[in-house]
Amino acid sequence: MKHAVAEFIGTMTLVLFGCGAAVIAGADIGLTGISFAFGLALIGMAYGIGSVSGCHINPAVTIGAVIAGRLPSSKAVTYILAQMAGAVVGAAILYVIATGKGGGYDVAVSGLGQNGWGAGYLGEYTMTAAFVFELVATFLFVVVILGSTGAGAPAAVAGMAIGLTLVVIHLVGINVTGVSVNPARSFGPALFAGGHAISQLWLFFAAPILGAVAAGVLFRSGLLDAD
Amino acid sequence: MKHAVAEFIGTMTLVLFGCGAAVIAGADIGLTGISFAFGLALIGMAYGIGSVSGCHINPAVTIGAVIAGRLPSSKAVTYILAQMAGAVVGAAILYVIATGKGGGYDVAVSGLGQNGWGAGYLGEYTMTAAFVFELVATFLFVVVILGSTGAGAPAAVAGMAIGLTLVVIHLVGINVTGVSVNPARSFGPALFAGGHAISQLWLFFAAPILGAVAAGVLFRSGLLDAD
Amino acid sequence: MKHAVAEFIGTMTLVLFGCGAAVIAGADIGLTGISFAFGLALIGMAYGIGSVSGCHINPAVTIGAVIAGRLPSSKAVTYILAQMAGAVVGAAILYVIATGKGGGYDVAVSGLGQNGWGAGYLGEYTMTAAFVFELVATFLFVVVILGSTGAGAPAAVAGMAIGLTLVVIHLVGINVTGVSVNPARSFGPALFAGGHAISQLWLFFAAPILGAVAAGVLFRSGLLDAD
Amino acid sequence: MKHAVAEFIGTMTLVLFGCGAAVIAGADIGLTGISFAFGLALIGMAYGIGSVSGCHINPAVTIGAVIAGRLPSSKAVTYILAQMAGAVVGAAILYVIATGKGGGYDVAVSGLGQNGWGAGYLGEYTMTAAFVFELVATFLFVVVILGSTGAGAPAAVAGMAIGLTLVVIHLVGINVTGVSVNPARSFGPALFAGGHAISQLWLFFAAPILGAVAAGVLFRSGLLDAD
Repeated sequence: MKHAVAEFIGTMTLVLFGCGAAVIAGADIGLTGISFAFGLALIGMAYGIGSVSGCHINPAVTIGAVIAGRLPSSKAVTYILAQMAGAVVGAAILYVIATGKGGGYDVAVSGLGQNGWGAGYLGEYTMTAAFVFELVATFLFVVVILGSTGAGAPAAVAGMAIGLTLVVIHLVGINVTGVSVNPARSFGPALFAGGHAISQLWLFFAAPILGAVAAGVLFRSGLLDAD
Repeated sequence: MKHAVAEFIGTMTLVLFGCGAAVIAGADIGLTGISFAFGLALIGMAYGIGSVSGCHINPAVTIGAVIAGRLPSSKAVTYILAQMAGAVVGAAILYVIATGKGGGYDVAVSGLGQNGWGAGYLGEYTMTAAFVFELVATFLFVVVILGSTGAGAPAAVAGMAIGLTLVVIHLVGINVTGVSVNPARSFGPALFAGGHAISQLWLFFAAPILGAVAAGVLFRSGLLDAD
Repeated sequence: MKHAVAEFIGTMTLVLFGCGAAVIAGADIGLTGISFAFGLALIGMAYGIGSVSGCHINPAVTIGAVIAGRLPSSKAVTYILAQMAGAVVGAAILYVIATGKGGGYDVAVSGLGQNGWGAGYLGEYTMTAAFVFELVATFLFVVVILGSTGAGAPAAVAGMAIGLTLVVIHLVGINVTGVSVNPARSFGPALFAGGHAISQLWLFFAAPILGAVAAGVLFRSGLLDAD
Repeated sequence: MKHAVAEFIGTMTLVLFGCGAAVIAGADIGLTGISFAFGLALIGMAYGIGSVSGCHINPAVTIGAVIAGRLPSSKAVTYILAQMAGAVVGAAILYVIATGKGGGYDVAVSGLGQNGWGAGYLGEYTMTAAFVFELVATFLFVVVILGSTGAGAPAAVAGMAIGLTLVVIHLVGINVTGVSVNPARSFGPALFAGGHAISQLWLFFAAPILGAVAAGVLFRSGLLDAD
């Protein structure tokens, strides 16, 4: 139960603050500000709930951790359900705040920070570019997560390193996909945005999970064990 | 006495540097720069005075800490009075510096970094949006504070995580309320700005305190105890 | 000798990177980028040379440390001379690089990142505003330095907190004085910029040293000893 | 083998994320965002693979470490080959993603984040300015690396300090050379960009290596041993 509460609050925060920065302040803070919002939300939660659940707040990370032998597979379903629920509630709270803007805010037009690709979406990158980016970025993200929380690494600083890695992933990739590397983060806003956000959701499950599986396998192999 | 000195200096710094960045440099550094100013001022003080008083520098945090059983309630009044006094003095020093600008600076026109909502205030969000944002943001902020300073979390890094959480809260919410999550931070500048800043001050006491109480209750329940 | 080498390299780096960001990239990175440049240069050196000399790289900090009883007064002259020499060499290296710009760079016109106030200098703040800002900012900066490196504080993170405090001080005050809080940082560029940078140099010695003395006295009094 | 895998992944990440931010998002995030991308990529890898190989991901750093007596010279060739290969693969992945942009992306015209100087390259600085900047910046970078990972320094925070130093080096020097301080980082993108990026590559081997050698000698001399 404690794990579920922690993962719920953490994922809610990631979506509310990360997508919230894009929706409420994107025009003012630009891609740099949005990138920091996602990463710093993760840092806050890494220390706020990390001692309870490990702060995965991301189904891909949970799957990678199971494969690497860091989490019993029996716990994965609880983690992932809590993450999905947290993402939906985070998006719902953002919906309430964003639509309170003077002059109104039309989610059907301006979205709610959903991921995507192709014509009409940010840099209009191809599906191939989107898939490659999400797969490679999630692989590297999970390498940082598993490496920085493994034997030999200074555990106290892991949350900082992981969150700052999420910043740089956003600095690179917002133009490509809006950056998911996290199926739950894509799922919550998509429910409210509808349209392409729903029909393109499969990629933001498939590519991040594939990348996380690859990282999990690499760590399970022992090739990145501490020296 | 030591606690009062520390909380006074800390809250003074938060207001002087946070609101100061908005007032003196806001047009140059934008919402991203202002957001970092608030959060980094908190980080500086978390390590500068944290070993003395715990660096609450925020009445909502002090109330949340009392409810969570982290601070004896007998100390809360001293903390809060020192925070309020520090916020007023921080705003006063900012007033002195800001009005020394070439060509002058009219606080009655341009304000002193006060919080607010509605017509004429930044994104012109509704009172409901303002209340929801302040309540939820303070709840999550205090979750990070109580979690990162609790058993099982690496205490040395807590100040970093807490300050960076304040950065992301500002990245999201400056357009909504200017971001308070801290009654003292709202109180100091309001005294100098007057007008709406005074008549709307109640929300920046009520919503942050409610959010902090909710976080305090959650931690008192043990649901977020370390695993 | 080791102390002098460390303080020389550290102060050289602060001036080369901090003023260098302003001179070479200021038009591109704005006040936010310049602010981070100064603070991150300090963070780098805090860990690069901190174990040798403590990384004061600032005569005001050295004086505050002596008053607080953290540094034997017999070492202060060596520290300060090395800091001054490092600042001059840092400014000289910056001069060589900056003047290699295509189309040229005229230091007599565009300066070399020197401090100042009044007509023609950034926000054109009055001398009083400049003095108050430098005094208060240095006081708070040295409070963070002495507090974060004192008993009860986590020493490993002090360099991060101190550097990030220097970031926020710059976010607030570049428009007021360009931000000194450090006589050596003002001295080096002034030698190359000449004019007002020389005639106004006194303030960037007097105000920071007064602020640092106040912080040193406060810590010596025991009022900010760890709880 | 583990060392090679780690250095390969790390250098691939540095090039993919650092140059990727410039290529994919440079127009949106500016020099400040690009600077953070390089430094935060290094921070992520410092904790992700640092416990395996030390996370040099830079031939100049490896050479400096050998000279300072921190790495057996027998390992240097493996490290450097893995770094070079990682940089090429990182650039290749970036090539795939970048050319998936709607409307296309012509690497022959817009480059792939390669380093350079002179007419047509960013601030059009002279070769002398470029050489001095790369030499001095790498020297100071390696001082931070060797100092922060040496006896007496808090090892857990070294990766943060080193990465943030890479941020400030970029804030200062992107206009001068695009910032290398790392022959591998220059090599990968140059293969794809061709032209001047190839003919000017020598400087980004010579100057960083000279700077790193100087830092290695300084540490070997004991002049910067902890107090």
